[in-house]
Amino acid sequence: MSDTDGNEAYGRKSFKRSKSHFTDRITADAREGWPLEAGRYRLVVSRACPWASRAVISRRLLGLEDALSLAIADPIQDDRSWRFTLDPDGRDPVLGIRFLSEAYDARETDYPGGVSVPAIVDVPSGRLVTNDFQQITLDLATEWTALHREGAPDLYPARLRDEIDEIMEEVYEDVNNGVYRAGFATEQEEYAAACERLFRRLELLSARLARRRYLVGGTITEADIRLFTTLVRFDAVYHGHFKCNRWKLTEDEVLWAYVRDLYQTPGFGDTVDFDHIKRHYYQVHTGINPTRIVPLGPDLSGWLTPHGREELGGRPFGDGTPPGPVPEGERVPAAGRP
Amino acid sequence: MSDTDGNEAYGRKSFKRSKSHFTDRITADAREGWPLEAGRYRLVVSRACPWASRAVISRRLLGLEDALSLAIADPIQDDRSWRFTLDPDGRDPVLGIRFLSEAYDARETDYPGGVSVPAIVDVPSGRLVTNDFQQITLDLATEWTALHREGAPDLYPARLRDEIDEIMEEVYEDVNNGVYRAGFATEQEEYAAACERLFRRLELLSARLARRRYLVGGTITEADIRLFTTLVRFDAVYHGHFKCNRWKLTEDEVLWAYVRDLYQTPGFGDTVDFDHIKRHYYQVHTGINPTRIVPLGPDLSGWLTPHGREELGGRPFGDGTPPGPVPEGERVPAAGRP
Repeated sequence: MSDTDGNEAYGRKSFKRSKSHFTDRITADAREGWPLEAGRYRLVVSRACPWASRAVISRRLLGLEDALSLAIADPIQDDRSWRFTLDPDGRDPVLGIRFLSEAYDARETDYPGGVSVPAIVDVPSGRLVTNDFQQITLDLATEWTALHREGAPDLYPARLRDEIDEIMEEVYEDVNNGVYRAGFATEQEEYAAACERLFRRLELLSARLARRRYLVGGTITEADIRLFTTLVRFDAVYHGHFKCNRWKLTEDEVLWAYVRDLYQTPGFGDTVDFDHIKRHYYQVHTGINPTRIVPLGPDLSGWLTPHGREELGGRPFGDGTPPGPVPEGERVPAAGRP
Repeated sequence: MSDTDGNEAYGRKSFKRSKSHFTDRITADAREGWPLEAGRYRLVVSRACPWASRAVISRRLLGLEDALSLAIADPIQDDRSWRFTLDPDGRDPVLGIRFLSEAYDARETDYPGGVSVPAIVDVPSGRLVTNDFQQITLDLATEWTALHREGAPDLYPARLRDEIDEIMEEVYEDVNNGVYRAGFATEQEEYAAACERLFRRLELLSARLARRRYLVGGTITEADIRLFTTLVRFDAVYHGHFKCNRWKLTEDEVLWAYVRDLYQTPGFGDTVDFDHIKRHYYQVHTGINPTRIVPLGPDLSGWLTPHGREELGGRPFGDGTPPGPVPEGERVPAAGRP
């Protein structure tokens, strides 16, 4: 999750991602007091944040746009963290708040932790329900089924969960969080260890994906979503800003084709805002980019080129269908896309 | 030239490279009081610095190793600037000094400017002769001819000087110095202007070099040396550290082949120390890399791959011959080379 997104970590010996504090779950049986209900909750994200972007993609793939509305924070936090400065009058039009922290405060007074996205807020009470970035998407896939669109894919199939969990754990440690451990390192050894582990894992993933279109089974699963949100940011921010620069993703034929395949799949690329991504990383992390200058590169024109991955077989949505068009008002400004 | 290498520029509105202060010339006719004499002068460089590296390459190509000895400074300056901390007891064995600034002080008391490389020092008096990075290599090519090796190429042929000067001027503004203007920019607009100009020039150079092996005429000239010293550093430091990241040099087929061709030519690649280059840029410029962490990348294994540029014709050394092996004691530790 992104709170002040690791800025707090600079003084520490080693980057540690803090655990989510609010872990309530919205379930089909309402056993934690939060019943499934269309229109009741609001998903607050930043399009810059890879952890939040998982939920944006899942929501699209599952067709939850009408059931779970979306609030998009400004990619640039200030000292009060995530803000709704992209909305008229700087207020989220549904929650009526200016800062995401107001929903945190409504849930727990004087909560001392970070304010992070993704966050799900209960609209009637204005209270935060959960900021548990690891659980939110699993619940969208398995607890929100009654509200899924017709033709929604099964992103977390019961029979494949052990394999999915195992690969997600490796990807989390070495890739999703690995880029942050490299980027926020304050010592050479710490950086080098994270960077080496990252590229070793990427090489293993590349070998695996040379033979199969998706990470697990023959369809898109949660594992692909979680790898995608890091890979799509790789050349734009992790390569330079986080010094994960052994090679660019475009230099690995398999991973570059894999991520383009997903990018070109409805529900993935149509959620990606490279402008938000670049401005967030380069302007917020002043500890590693004091000038706050945002690079012009990389050239994004390759994202829509043919990837040839269809030849590997697989059915992106299994027995389901692709999601429909992006709802009006949620379209991402063209960047890398026509 | 590299003094504190632009650190001083951070506070300014726009990066300006200061002019060399000491512009005496060592000439064949000794008209400025500095006669050509084998063994009399010492060339002080950092292998990290692109301006100094021009002179290191010229000296190799022209076979001036015995006539003009070489002092190599530590790639990491401290607040007294360039140091001889790589030498026993931290002293240059010929000049007997610990800091290059001592030669500057011997020349002019309380000189207020920066201490830069390349510098040529008069060994008997210990006084700096020149730090004129634009003139030094031209004089090595045209005034030091009596001391050139047999078979030395003509790096600045009289009949091509107008064309060479014109292209060197464009390359200086947009490329050699352009990367610094991008990297040391403190405002987005200033960075963007420099970065756009840089890549526009690189595209023009790429188009020119698609049809011809070298920049001017059919042989290696000073113009190639000056373009090489920036290009060889491009992916290692300018791409990430200076945010010149529209593409990596390896992504431009022509320029990547051109720079590999030169790298594999005796006198070029055998002067390049990627370790000095990376440590210098990433550790000295704390204004843009406060953690001083040096990236593991990029992968350097491609530098010795075939480039295919022989097909374009041209004769690298014209009527001359390649230089002999690198003198003992000046060998660069293998990096990108076996």
